[in-house]
This record gives sequence, C-alpha cells and structure tokens, in this order.
Amino acid sequence: MKRILTHLKSQTRCSKRHTSSYVQGQPDGPTMKTAFPGPKSLAQKAALQNMQAAGGVSFFADYNKSLGNYVADVDGNVLLDFLMQISSLPLGYNHPRISEAMRDPKNISRLTTRPALGFIPPADWMDQLNSTLMSVAPAGVDGVQLMMCGSCGNEYAFKAAFIYHQAKKRGGALPTAEENESCLWNKKPGSPDLAILSFENAFHGRTTGSLSTSHAKPVHKLDFPTLDWPHAPFPQLKYPLEKHVKENRNEEQRCLNEVERLIDERAAIGQSVAGIVVEPIMAEGGDHAATPEFYKQLQAICKKRDIVFIVDEVQTGVAITGKMWGHEHWGLESPPDITVFAKKMITAGFFYKKHLIPEQGHRIFNTWMGDPHKLVILEAVLEVTKEEKLIENMATQGVRLKEGLQKLQEKYSDQVSKVRGVGSFLAFDGSSPEARDSIIRRMGDKGVLALGCGSQSLRLRPANIIEQCHADIFINTLDEVLKET
Amino acid sequence: MKRILTHLKSQTRCSKRHTSSYVQGQPDGPTMKTAFPGPKSLAQKAALQNMQAAGGVSFFADYNKSLGNYVADVDGNVLLDFLMQISSLPLGYNHPRISEAMRDPKNISRLTTRPALGFIPPADWMDQLNSTLMSVAPAGVDGVQLMMCGSCGNEYAFKAAFIYHQAKKRGGALPTAEENESCLWNKKPGSPDLAILSFENAFHGRTTGSLSTSHAKPVHKLDFPTLDWPHAPFPQLKYPLEKHVKENRNEEQRCLNEVERLIDERAAIGQSVAGIVVEPIMAEGGDHAATPEFYKQLQAICKKRDIVFIVDEVQTGVAITGKMWGHEHWGLESPPDITVFAKKMITAGFFYKKHLIPEQGHRIFNTWMGDPHKLVILEAVLEVTKEEKLIENMATQGVRLKEGLQKLQEKYSDQVSKVRGVGSFLAFDGSSPEARDSIIRRMGDKGVLALGCGSQSLRLRPANIIEQCHADIFINTLDEVLKET
Repeated sequence: MKRILTHLKSQTRCSKRHTSSYVQGQPDGPTMKTAFPGPKSLAQKAALQNMQAAGGVSFFADYNKSLGNYVADVDGNVLLDFLMQISSLPLGYNHPRISEAMRDPKNISRLTTRPALGFIPPADWMDQLNSTLMSVAPAGVDGVQLMMCGSCGNEYAFKAAFIYHQAKKRGGALPTAEENESCLWNKKPGSPDLAILSFENAFHGRTTGSLSTSHAKPVHKLDFPTLDWPHAPFPQLKYPLEKHVKENRNEEQRCLNEVERLIDERAAIGQSVAGIVVEPIMAEGGDHAATPEFYKQLQAICKKRDIVFIVDEVQTGVAITGKMWGHEHWGLESPPDITVFAKKMITAGFFYKKHLIPEQGHRIFNTWMGDPHKLVILEAVLEVTKEEKLIENMATQGVRLKEGLQKLQEKYSDQVSKVRGVGSFLAFDGSSPEARDSIIRRMGDKGVLALGCGSQSLRLRPANIIEQCHADIFINTLDEVLKET
Repeated sequence: MKRILTHLKSQTRCSKRHTSSYVQGQPDGPTMKTAFPGPKSLAQKAALQNMQAAGGVSFFADYNKSLGNYVADVDGNVLLDFLMQISSLPLGYNHPRISEAMRDPKNISRLTTRPALGFIPPADWMDQLNSTLMSVAPAGVDGVQLMMCGSCGNEYAFKAAFIYHQAKKRGGALPTAEENESCLWNKKPGSPDLAILSFENAFHGRTTGSLSTSHAKPVHKLDFPTLDWPHAPFPQLKYPLEKHVKENRNEEQRCLNEVERLIDERAAIGQSVAGIVVEPIMAEGGDHAATPEFYKQLQAICKKRDIVFIVDEVQTGVAITGKMWGHEHWGLESPPDITVFAKKMITAGFFYKKHLIPEQGHRIFNTWMGDPHKLVILEAVLEVTKEEKLIENMATQGVRLKEGLQKLQEKYSDQVSKVRGVGSFLAFDGSSPEARDSIIRRMGDKGVLALGCGSQSLRLRPANIIEQCHADIFINTLDEVLKET
C-alpha cells in the first residue's frame, strides 16, 4: 500500500508534456490564491440574496477562464472540478468541439429560434432524434420524449404510466363524461387515485409529482404539500459486499417483499400503483445502490403486475458508470419500460416503449418539449464520447479512483468507510456529517471540488474527460486532507 | 364600414418597397403550394407517432427558411404566423439581432457551458440579471428567480408562497423534528395541507402542482392524480362590455365573494390557502379577462388575509398587450407579490418581493435554475424591443387588428362574436367549436396561422414585429374565409 501511495503522491500535477489530453490547454493542476470560497465570492453571495434565493450558492465562477476539468473562480483560484455543476457537464468546461458546433453556420437557426417541438417540429426532426438520442438509447426501447429538466422528465414519465394504466382499465372504451368533467376539478374518477411507488432516500426532482417520490432530505420537501404516495425501504447493504452476500440478499428480499405488500395495502384502500421509479444509484440520497439481482426482481414484480418500471438515470446516465446507462450493469433481459435522463445528456426526457406512447394528442405535451440548442450540444457530446471512447475511459479511471479510495479507507479507517460505486460514479462515507463537510471544505482550500450527498457521504462526479493525472490529484489531495485530521 | 373593408382588401400583401420593416427580407405575403397541412407534414406526423407522442403535431417546419413573421413548411408553403410557436417567439423567426448575438465571440462560453446557476453562478450574474430581467421588472419588485419553463415557474412561485406561509406560522421558530421527518413521507405536519386557489378555465401548466391549478380542458388533466385545491368561478362578462357595466360588476363581485367563501370553507376543514394565482387574460381557457377592478379587489383580498398574490404572465407578458406586462393595465398601487413569466420572455421564472425570498438555501433550488443561452437571446430581444419601440407597436397594431375584427363581427354577426382583448392579445368566438376549427383550417389553407383556445375561440398571438400590412393580411384572409361560409 505504501508503495502505491508514494507513487500517487509523486503525481500531484498533470505533466505539461502530456499528449493524450482530451482537452488541450488545460491547467496542469489547481492554483489557489485564497481560502475557498474566496472573499469576492462571499461578498457577491451576500449581495445576491437581496434579489434571489442565494443560500445554495457555493461560489461565483469565471466561466470564460474555465476549461476542461478546471473551473476558475472570481477570486483568481483555479480548481480541479469533481462535481461538474452537479454532474451536468459531460465534457467539462468550454469543450472546443461544443464551441465549434456553436460557431457552425449550419446550426445558427437552431440556436436562434426555439420552436414548440411537440407542435411544429423541424423538417429533420426524426433524423435528429435517431442520430442523437436514439443512437444511445437502451437496447429494445422504441421512442424518446424530450422535456426541459429531469424533474419534468419524471413527471411526464409518470403521466405515461397513468395514461397506460387507465387505458387498460377502460379496455378500449372512451373516458366517460363524468371522468372528463371531474378531472377538471381535481376529483375522482377523472383524477383517479393512482400512485408511483418510490424508495426511501430516493430523489427524483422538485416539482410536485416528482417531489412526491423524493425522500432524501427535509430541505427538499418541508412545507410543501405533496401526494400521498407509498415509499418502500431501500436495501441498506453491508460493506464490503463480498463479505455480506447472504445478509445483503436477505435485506434485498425484505425490501422487495415490502414493495409487494405496499402495493396490496394501497389497493385495499383504493389506490393503484401504476408505476415504480428507482435510480440505479441513489445519488442525492447518499449514493446507495442494491445488487443487480434486486433490480431484476423489481422489474419482475412490475411485469407480473403490469406496473410501469421507470428507471431514473438523470445522474447515472452518460458514461460515468463505465457504461452509457447505469442499468446496463444489471443484465436485464429487456430494458426498463421508461428510462429518464437529464444532466450529462444535456437535454432532459425519457426513452420508452411503444405501448406507452399515447395515441391521443396533447397529453404528453407542453409548449417547448425540448430545445434545439441542447440537441446541437448533444450531437457534439455524443460524437466526442464515441471518438474518444469516453465510456471506456470512465470505466478505466474508475478502477484507479476506486483503488485509491480503498487504499485511503485502509489507511484512514476511522475517517473513511463504505467506499462504493460503479465506474467513476463513486462515493465514501465520512465519520460524521461534520467530518464529511470538513473534508469537502479543506479539499476546496487545496483546489479540488467534491460534492456531499446523503447525511455524511462524499460523492465524486467528474466530467467524462478526466485522465489518470486528474484521478491522482483527487486521491492525493484527499490523502493530504485526511492526513491533517 | 364598407369603405374600411374595401381599403383593407386592397392590402393583401406587404409592399416590396416597404422600408420600415422590422426584419428585412421577409416574404411580402404567404405562398401556398398545397392544402395545409401538406402531404409531407402528414406523412412525417404518422411516422413520428412510432417514436413519440405525435398527436399534437400540426405540421413540420423548415426553420432555416423561416423569417420574421413567416414560417416555411416541409411542403414548400410559406405562412404568415399569428400563433408564433404558442406565443413564444417575440421577434419571430431567425431575427438577425439574435443570430448576431449567437455569433458574437464574447457569448460563446455562455452558449457552450451551462452551469448550475443557483449553485455556481457566473462572475457577472447580478449584472446580467439587472441588465436583462430586472430592467423590465414590474415596478416595486425586488428580485427574480429563473426556472426552465412556465410550469416550473408557477411550481416554484407556489413554493415561495408555502415557505412564507409556514415561516409566518412558526413565528421565527425552527421547524420541529416531527415536521422534518414527516415531510419526507408526504405526511403532515411537515407536508402540510396548504393550497393555491385558482380559477375555472385557468391554465398554469402541466406538472402536478401547476396542473392542480389548471382547469381549462380535460385533455390536460384526465387520468392524472392532482392535489385537492380549490377553484373559484371566474367572471363571465357580457359583451360588449360598455353595454353591461352593472351586470358585469355584479358578476365580478359574485366571484370575489366566492373566493372569500372558499378560503373560509377550506380553513374550516384544515386547509390554508397560501396563494391565489390568476392570469391577466386566461389564454388556454379561452381568452377570458375580468375588468381591472376585479384584479384590484382580488389583490385587496390577498393583502387583507396575507395570502400571496401570484399573477401568471406566461402568455400575457412581453409587449403583446401593448404594455410589458398584462397586469400594468390594472393600475395596481403595488405590484403582484409574484409575477411568473416564460414564453416570449425566452427564459422562465418569476419576479418577487423581498419578503418572499427564503433565507435558507436549497429550498428554491434545482440543478439548472435557468440557462445562460436564453439570457443571451433575451438581451437581444430586450434591446430590439426598446430600440424599435415594440411595446408601442403592439398597442398600435392591436388597435388596427381589433377594429378589423369588430368590423368582421358586424359583417358576419352569425359567425363572429365576443371580439375581445388588449393590445394585440386578441380573440373572438366562432359560432361553435366546429365552426371555429373550420375557420382555422381554411385560414391555414390560405397561408395564415391562428390558434384555438377555450371551446370555440380563436386567438391571435402574433410576434411583436408585426406591421400594418401583416395585420391587414390577417383580417383580409379572415374576411375571405368568413365570406365563403
């Protein structure tokens, strides 16, 4: 172990002669001129509170000076960014291929004029969908629906489930006059008692429907009326996984049994579960995942009961787990009925199967239904992802990052536990919420950004263009911080 | 009357020598090569249904060939567009000033890299907000919050109202442990029984919270679970307004009384109304408006009861009524507590007053909180709006359009009724839903696009760059269609 850490230690900056860089001209390491966040950021944050909710602001960035894996701030600091705008920038900052796409005269109309895409689509709309979104769709899905954000992606995925459920119930009959009238007033039978079942610690967004399936933190939900929908326990696995196989299997079965019990319990009081939504790794809720067997069994429950199986890949999608979609690690025989995306996918929306596409118009519908500007960016992102083999890169870097974290877990077993994750989608627990916060703060002071999740976890959410030296800077900086404690 | 119509009739195209055009190079009138929608559009629509919900598609456009007030379609037709992507394009298609902003090298980073604006704002964030959104804010508001769409704008406006309501109730105390825990499971007291009161025929969006305040059409709501929130009747005014002053005043008072009765009725069963939301003109619900006195009284009820007064200007905002905001026509002494915007404002969000800005972070929060690309567009839109005096233009063109509609109402009193609206935000009723649909279809065949609303209304939603000849083409085409019936 010592040998490896010494080796890592020697690599605290990227070599300037490094030739395999995915983005040329990046800094070779962080440069810090102030404590972090710096005085200018703090002053601007205080001022901003007078005109908008600024309590969630971390710092103010100089995006013109940011490049690749590095973000510049208003205090002259340059930081290695392992949180990437809450995991939303697949190619980091100011990637030259995206800039090039923005400058390409053939794209100018798509940047200038945003049409109502569900109402008056552009001439080549199907080609655009096929060459971008459908080219990376989970195998076996039929279509894709675009939305403006992940939360809306989930809201409309739920709608597709509700429409399917009620159409099945009607058996081909038209809705009754009573249904059409009562729905207008938020009343049964038109606005029926249907539910989406979700899991403890899940996070699916902040609009009322998706918020009703989120159970991660009070700050997301306090004071907001929500729908009375059921939540099942999510398996709390023991680590290391290989030492607790049987116990963990039992824990997963307990949760699956609860799912079935809850569906029956709700049915008994007149509420039908039309869909189940789950993240491949619960990110906001603390980077918890179950084993592939759990998700397979969950899908089997959905199939058995004809419930729509919705997988929320807003944070797990687009290469970071070492596969395009996190659920590819499960080995499902058929894809989820609906796969929701956003963040690193640039546009939000969901993939779905044919039986869920409503025949009647204006039901899965709103004014914008996506954004051509975002598809121009996505084209560049997917081209670069393929050319540079970034999915494989995130698998490779993930191995190095996870090994580094595991070594630190051995070295600082009182400070680091539950190293976990798939590909480069990694996390560990600090010894307490305060200890975790302190690690994040001191890493910031040394020029490396990471993000908390759950009560005391720290998550790594790098861009898909990290290289070995960036992984090493992250691990070595964390080592330095832990050493000081 | 005859004289005026004859005069209008002579103006069926814009003069090619016309020099005051807001957008140079526009066609001088529609060109139709097929029935509308044409065969290529219909074939593409059928194909698209295999991969997404396409029932709401009207036609497929060639956006590269569209300019100003004219949209080109895939069948070689060019139409004068008086619906403008559901009233979302303030400067029409491919406006040169927006294209120029897209090409400006100083904007390239804002087009390339989308940050999490509520988490890591750009260095000049406050300057950007002040020079764009706040420069056109209703007088007396303090701040602005950005969102991705109008529906989310309303959802988060509702949240601001709920946070304010509960903070007031706590009187400075922290939330209890029971509140923090129960909210996670969608239960009281943390997820309290609060409501937003809305009106019959309102439309505020399609995510679950905003959908619970929408009561326009079953197609928006059928099969979707919603929150049990109250709706009040909205004044059904008699036209012409000047002949029914007293009756209409009584009708408005009846509705205001109902608002107060509903608030008390809900309070009696434990539900508190924290906010009231209303559109200056109910667009989707049929272009209904009340008199300024109604809205003043509604604001007075809110003030008396300390309920948050939310005005949804998603469709009425940005010049089309002849003022920047529709509610400016009411002559309020102080602005609404919250004014929600989207569509022609390019970005979505809301203006609000200081007492509604939450001090605690991460409550009015999500990943994106707006989009820099949209602010680049908005800068150009607001500059052009000011330079070209487009607010005044929409007042001026509105006079001509409304006069034209009124003449047609006199001429075809069996086919056209209830001509109404403010500025260029105009509508009339057809004699039946089918007759209205037929008018829209036949206008399409003649190369002029309009949009239905409510059960049998036709609404005009032109871009803010229409000129006299565009108004005349619209009126004359409508005249031709009505004449054929």
